[in-house]
Amino acid sequence: MGKKEDIMNATLSLIMTEGIQAITFSKIFEAANVGSSTFYYYYKNKEELVDDIYRQAERHMGGALIEGYPADATAFQKSNCIVGNMIQFGMDFPKELLFVESYSDSPAISKEVRDADVEGMRDIYEVISSGQEEGNIALMNPTLCMYIVKGIVANAIRGYFAGKYDLDATAQEQLKAACWKAIKM
Amino acid sequence: MGKKEDIMNATLSLIMTEGIQAITFSKIFEAANVGSSTFYYYYKNKEELVDDIYRQAERHMGGALIEGYPADATAFQKSNCIVGNMIQFGMDFPKELLFVESYSDSPAISKEVRDADVEGMRDIYEVISSGQEEGNIALMNPTLCMYIVKGIVANAIRGYFAGKYDLDATAQEQLKAACWKAIKM
Repeated sequence: MGKKEDIMNATLSLIMTEGIQAITFSKIFEAANVGSSTFYYYYKNKEELVDDIYRQAERHMGGALIEGYPADATAFQKSNCIVGNMIQFGMDFPKELLFVESYSDSPAISKEVRDADVEGMRDIYEVISSGQEEGNIALMNPTLCMYIVKGIVANAIRGYFAGKYDLDATAQEQLKAACWKAIKM
Repeated sequence: MGKKEDIMNATLSLIMTEGIQAITFSKIFEAANVGSSTFYYYYKNKEELVDDIYRQAERHMGGALIEGYPADATAFQKSNCIVGNMIQFGMDFPKELLFVESYSDSPAISKEVRDADVEGMRDIYEVISSGQEEGNIALMNPTLCMYIVKGIVANAIRGYFAGKYDLDATAQEQLKAACWKAIKM
């Protein structure tokens, strides 16, 4: 890994253990094992770094969400694909998923970065709105619908990594079913 | 309000805007408008204060959850009562709900306080386990089931206070329905 990735990974870990406001340059330099000149080679300031971590985590997740996405399928099949991918992404990259979910409304990330149109993320809206048109998904505000699904997955991942329960294949299927049932017509 | 409540409320606001690790004595003293002698009259240290805030918020929420709780009712009715109360509590006291939900697995709160048996909170388990016995609630790990419901409500409240959608009476009913459908058999 390069120094830039070291800085990003170390800072993401710091954010998820200590919170974004507790992050200092000295902590970043120590955790990433870089000096200030290396830091300033890549970033003007902490805000730029944090935006970059968010942008990359969201793109990483967005790409993962649409793996194997069935363009011609029912709302149920599309939802199952995206939710299954989200669960898998959360198990593989819990910090990235929980960072994006926890900070998607936070002023700590610049609005431009939070509002960016990210491949994979926009497909969630597409599934919801077309599912609503077809009468398969409940007619609620599509953003509320999305918050419901993301709330289920992110909280389930959080509980799993806190050791509250296992997320074996059966539990993952139950979680996928819960997401679909929550939003279906 | 007394000085103790001033300290608790000011610190809860600080935690929800800056994160628990960013809280310093000087910020608490300034936000609560108290001096160190007042602080130490009530608390030995910050950990004791944060535990106290968590304990009080959880009890406050637990009590609110079982308002009008129908002891002799179907799992659907019981769930609807508790979830409806949770939504209302979240709209009235968003910082308390989001604090309890965000920090329920955090080492920033002592394990003893997090694991305390709180009236109202334990009723959620009761609804789930009896609903599972009766065949009305899906047979998944009861804690996962609870994380699903809390994830839906907490994330929906977060989006509402971020201005993403309205939570009028209709949306609240949709949210209640989503919670029930997510966990029902």
